[in-house]
Amino acid sequence: MPSSPFLNGAAYVRGRFVPIAEAAIPVTDWGFTRSDVVYDVVHVWKGGFFRLDDHLDRFEASMRKRRIHPPEDRAAIAGILHRCVALSGLADAFVAMVATRGRPRVFGSRRPADCDNYLIAYAVPWIDVVPKDMQARGAHMWIGATPRVPDHAVDPTVKNYQWSDLTSNLLEAHDEGFDTAVTCDAAGFVTEGPGFNVFVVKDGAVKTPDRGSLGGITRRTALEVCAHLGLPAAIAPVTRAELEDADEVFITSTAGGVMPVSRVMTRILGNDRPGPVYEKVRATYWQWHEDPRFRTAVKPLAEEA
Amino acid sequence: MPSSPFLNGAAYVRGRFVPIAEAAIPVTDWGFTRSDVVYDVVHVWKGGFFRLDDHLDRFEASMRKRRIHPPEDRAAIAGILHRCVALSGLADAFVAMVATRGRPRVFGSRRPADCDNYLIAYAVPWIDVVPKDMQARGAHMWIGATPRVPDHAVDPTVKNYQWSDLTSNLLEAHDEGFDTAVTCDAAGFVTEGPGFNVFVVKDGAVKTPDRGSLGGITRRTALEVCAHLGLPAAIAPVTRAELEDADEVFITSTAGGVMPVSRVMTRILGNDRPGPVYEKVRATYWQWHEDPRFRTAVKPLAEEA
Repeated sequence: MPSSPFLNGAAYVRGRFVPIAEAAIPVTDWGFTRSDVVYDVVHVWKGGFFRLDDHLDRFEASMRKRRIHPPEDRAAIAGILHRCVALSGLADAFVAMVATRGRPRVFGSRRPADCDNYLIAYAVPWIDVVPKDMQARGAHMWIGATPRVPDHAVDPTVKNYQWSDLTSNLLEAHDEGFDTAVTCDAAGFVTEGPGFNVFVVKDGAVKTPDRGSLGGITRRTALEVCAHLGLPAAIAPVTRAELEDADEVFITSTAGGVMPVSRVMTRILGNDRPGPVYEKVRATYWQWHEDPRFRTAVKPLAEEA
Repeated sequence: MPSSPFLNGAAYVRGRFVPIAEAAIPVTDWGFTRSDVVYDVVHVWKGGFFRLDDHLDRFEASMRKRRIHPPEDRAAIAGILHRCVALSGLADAFVAMVATRGRPRVFGSRRPADCDNYLIAYAVPWIDVVPKDMQARGAHMWIGATPRVPDHAVDPTVKNYQWSDLTSNLLEAHDEGFDTAVTCDAAGFVTEGPGFNVFVVKDGAVKTPDRGSLGGITRRTALEVCAHLGLPAAIAPVTRAELEDADEVFITSTAGGVMPVSRVMTRILGNDRPGPVYEKVRATYWQWHEDPRFRTAVKPLAEEA
């Protein structure tokens, strides 16, 4: 469908499918004015969702924890995601599901319970969290000065849009000529970056931080890949010093998968290029995209209705 | 104009004035998906802005600190606010100005510097942060279990929409049958609530927290009112124990002005009704709304163009 209005992306907002350019939320929606919203992003590669059920599990957990309950149930949400992708015609895509608090039914109410929660979903063209040209040489990572918001103040496992700390460090990284930034907590432990988890490799052992981080689905996949490959890998504390002293660093995100880091601050890792553990993990990560354990073919438009 | 489409509120989005119901931001705007946005709210009472210049000062400071720069300069922003109010026909209103990061000009960019920042503004009917019926008896305040996001992680003086910690405590307060919630930091110092600053009165002396708080314009006005009335008042540390042991508690917000608290957790303050210091501060606060030092008459539609 070359003239489809959905070519740049397709969205669902409160019961209607619209071209992505028309998908918007009211400026008075609490999902915007209080960032009272949870979301998830699953990717589609060569016409198949990757780990769709795991993303739906996490999205449901996020909604439950923040008590945001749109009218659509899990099956309906899955159907909407399929339809957004099918309408967009994209073979590779990012597919977002967003549950927002909405606005009070009662004028003047300040009570979250008085709000009409609703669902937004959309499929848009693929973007890597680290652009492809940077992946070729490995990303240059800055360790930002702004500490991570503590887990007890904002639960990082509830996928949320409150990125101020991550953005502060990203601005700083770009000022310093770096590609991206990682954020440490106030005690000096590594947490995550804007949209990605971090992995360090030292003497063959792989670690990813146990705090201040989203429980990334790509992170989980990378850990499972490590187990599959016989590489020791753990969720554990990672200090800033361990990050700077690592043999290898890589990052994981739904937005791009497993991506290499070749520099951390002034440290050059390995030969200033993507490392061997990264290469192995990445290769298996992409092989698994063909695996029926993880792949759900996107339903064509004729079928999914 | 009884049939005006702007009767429920008027908005300005990227150069166009629209009815409030049509004012929306794209679901892919970083102002939403990263809460990468700053804002301010000024109120209009009986046809006049209150401390408009102070709100514009703070809005400009917030934009500068987050490096969000819409094309409109200060004079243009002021003109837009006047026009939103005039279009709405509201004599009493809340008037928001919002600067959002927007979206990258370059497809796939993850750089804030690549984004087109833009301005949103709107005038909507007045809402009190504590509804009028609760003000009559004094609000019942809950001290939430979720600690405030630390100032060094997210600067609370940059007015932002990242309310997760405040919302967590508000949900808890409503569960417990309270009207609203205040949030303390991890060390047990009082910070603020969802949309308001807090004041405690003990033995005639007035204090408002020095941390975890927005530099509220209504807070500043309340402090100036105290000075005017000869009441000792300071910005200083306030512990949770001091809040629970206060003779009086009141809160301040652009959304309602100076508002009384009659209970803090299980403590009943005074005679379970608004206290005498609150009454005095509130009275002068409203008198000052007539004062030309603070009042800027809203320009009628004919004039402001």
